[in-house]
Amino acid sequence: MSEEAKNERRVLVAVDEGDESMYALSWSLKNVVFQNSKDTLILLYVKPHHGVYSALDATGILDEPQIPGHSYSPQITAAIEKYSQEVADCVLQKAKKLCKDLQNVKLETRVESGDPRDVICDMSQKLGADLLVMGSHGFGILKRAFLGSVSNYCSQNVKCPVLIVKKPKPSASTG
Amino acid sequence: MSEEAKNERRVLVAVDEGDESMYALSWSLKNVVFQNSKDTLILLYVKPHHGVYSALDATGILDEPQIPGHSYSPQITAAIEKYSQEVADCVLQKAKKLCKDLQNVKLETRVESGDPRDVICDMSQKLGADLLVMGSHGFGILKRAFLGSVSNYCSQNVKCPVLIVKKPKPSASTG
Repeated sequence: MSEEAKNERRVLVAVDEGDESMYALSWSLKNVVFQNSKDTLILLYVKPHHGVYSALDATGILDEPQIPGHSYSPQITAAIEKYSQEVADCVLQKAKKLCKDLQNVKLETRVESGDPRDVICDMSQKLGADLLVMGSHGFGILKRAFLGSVSNYCSQNVKCPVLIVKKPKPSASTG
Repeated sequence: MSEEAKNERRVLVAVDEGDESMYALSWSLKNVVFQNSKDTLILLYVKPHHGVYSALDATGILDEPQIPGHSYSPQITAAIEKYSQEVADCVLQKAKKLCKDLQNVKLETRVESGDPRDVICDMSQKLGADLLVMGSHGFGILKRAFLGSVSNYCSQNVKCPVLIVKKPKPSASTG
């Protein structure tokens, strides 16, 4: 591999609603993806599949009565879809803001739907990622409760190197 | 954090007898630790604790009969210690060879003893690592069988970012 090759990498960063994934993105911008490096930075947001909302529904958070296993009314489906897209736009906008000072680095964004564990693994391969970056605990408190640790799963199943970044807890002395 | 700060990091690379940890080191040299970067690169080798050899002993691999729970004779202990130190020297020599072209980057080596999971987590904190790099499946087939996945444990318990690098399987087309 030539010396130049190291600066033409495809770095996939999985972002979500949590602060930790934004911290992971910032950390990778300072430590892995450099200015003028000819890297491609791909920001991936995974919209939850409807199963997560089914579970919410069972808790009574959604106000339309549902028979378990029954499909949503078109109104509910449309509302979920709209909300989900708004969250995706908001997360990616926040992530792109963090990347605003990058020069020459190509920036791409992707929104996919499904179980984040499978989608992140699949997209790492499909997009030819040379490195996957993710937070340690991200993908939402609710989603994590239903789906388990996404970073654990991905670090075991993704073929490319995986960088897992934890957000440091605020130091007591600065509080 | 100043722009310069990113180039004065302490990168801890856990190395062992396996090819994968050497691949992880090479990958990090190409992608994370750069020439003239003022980074400090710390190569850590963890010698197994005697429990691993006790397990070996139970399989009859060691030829001195042992009562379970009985301590080793001084001869066996000395032989294990000597072998273990030779392996450590050999692994670190191989790792340092990979780093021979690094300029300005400070290179340190550490040999510690114990359960690699605990030692790597402890040393990451004690040595003030800004990044821990490790292979995905390393730390020896035997040790892994007894201790479980070291990289899994560390990615969950180490406070700093963790980079897990898998060695790609040789492509069928090149075989």
